[in-house]
Amino acid sequence: MERINSKHNQQIKAVKKLTTTKGRKQAQQYLLESWHLVQAALEAVPAADVVMIYATDDQYLEHGADLTGRPVTLISTAVAQELGETMTPQGIFLVCKLPNPAQTPDYRGAWLLLDQVQDPGNIGTMVRTADAAGFSGVAFGKGTASPFNGKVLRAMQGSQFHLQMVETDLEELVVQFHDHQRPVYGTELNPQAVNYREVQPQTDFALIMGNEGNGMDPTLLQQTTKNLYIPITGQAESLNVAIAAAVIMFRIKAN
Amino acid sequence: MERINSKHNQQIKAVKKLTTTKGRKQAQQYLLESWHLVQAALEAVPAADVVMIYATDDQYLEHGADLTGRPVTLISTAVAQELGETMTPQGIFLVCKLPNPAQTPDYRGAWLLLDQVQDPGNIGTMVRTADAAGFSGVAFGKGTASPFNGKVLRAMQGSQFHLQMVETDLEELVVQFHDHQRPVYGTELNPQAVNYREVQPQTDFALIMGNEGNGMDPTLLQQTTKNLYIPITGQAESLNVAIAAAVIMFRIKAN
Repeated sequence: MERINSKHNQQIKAVKKLTTTKGRKQAQQYLLESWHLVQAALEAVPAADVVMIYATDDQYLEHGADLTGRPVTLISTAVAQELGETMTPQGIFLVCKLPNPAQTPDYRGAWLLLDQVQDPGNIGTMVRTADAAGFSGVAFGKGTASPFNGKVLRAMQGSQFHLQMVETDLEELVVQFHDHQRPVYGTELNPQAVNYREVQPQTDFALIMGNEGNGMDPTLLQQTTKNLYIPITGQAESLNVAIAAAVIMFRIKAN
Repeated sequence: MERINSKHNQQIKAVKKLTTTKGRKQAQQYLLESWHLVQAALEAVPAADVVMIYATDDQYLEHGADLTGRPVTLISTAVAQELGETMTPQGIFLVCKLPNPAQTPDYRGAWLLLDQVQDPGNIGTMVRTADAAGFSGVAFGKGTASPFNGKVLRAMQGSQFHLQMVETDLEELVVQFHDHQRPVYGTELNPQAVNYREVQPQTDFALIMGNEGNGMDPTLLQQTTKNLYIPITGQAESLNVAIAAAVIMFRIKAN
């Protein structure tokens, strides 16, 4: 088994580049960190898509039995620190091929559409919540942080393997949902909009969440079937976007 | 107006100590950061409780008109960096007296009880959500991060000024809620528990959220009226605790 002890190693430098959008695009690969996510990937991803697993001695001793037949390179703690994006990396990483971007949604079930959502933690949490609520897919519109960003991946907790995930132009996607006779619900912080509690639980629809500060794009707001809002009964000015998404998703998605 | 240019200044050192639990306890004061939170405090807190506002020249030029009659000290950017807990501090801070800890809940309306919740971001988000959902108060049990922790304060977005906030022993508090004939709902990740959708919306109750990894304390789980769970219909293993709290709060709190 190969071992890499130096963070200046060319291979490690190449893997480190996967923490950037440009690096992922060039290599058509992305980087997962922590045993929880590595395990989720090994269960979900075709074996041919697993490029390499990097593990410290400690991590290999702990999980080696589950890595039989998989490509593994041992790394020093210093290399783990170099690759890790958290303060105290566990010391296990997986490099994976990016999924085929040509994938198109099937317009079945419930879909969450993210319009210029900025915060990776919010994005990842929304994907995880959509998974828990039984959604079929999540669409990442332009201006929304990449689903392969490290912080997004950590907050998703592996839910990207359970859902259809597409990166696309939302205006075009919304047209498609209408063509498939699916209602599209926008969201806005505006009491003139429809109270989300008035929407009957249903199985096939799209729900759009907008930017943390500015909300949804005005053009997109015009394209929806209805726009929903959550009445604020206390004195808070607004809800965190991931919280608002959760409240609506669990309310309007029929089981 | 006084001006402090050095981060080694004794007064600044004393203010910096308010970022620790020990420092806050000794001084009986806490530190707020950013104009949004300073403004919320100036509106909500008795004038006598505002100990000092620290502002850079830029921040004073922008907000000075709103600070008339308030105690202000100008600080350099270096001092702002020293006091700030974010990467790029805005440069405005407020030192405030800690509220009277003798305050006891009134057991009216809806209450959120936090049992050993660890993550300051989750805690602050739950307080903000409770405020938006029209809750009356939040109780911080032992082992839950302090409501005066900087990260909790930032995530609360000023909601601490809209709600009753108590730090107390939850086992004793739950006994009190029962004595006042208020139902107490626990939460657990257990399909044997009651589906949260079966609880009718109501106005007066307590809802307990537990630790991110371990859930609620087993003793506390025995003390509740009912324990609730959120059915997971997808493949996600669990929900983030702040998300779960939001889904239940918005469902069972009557408007």
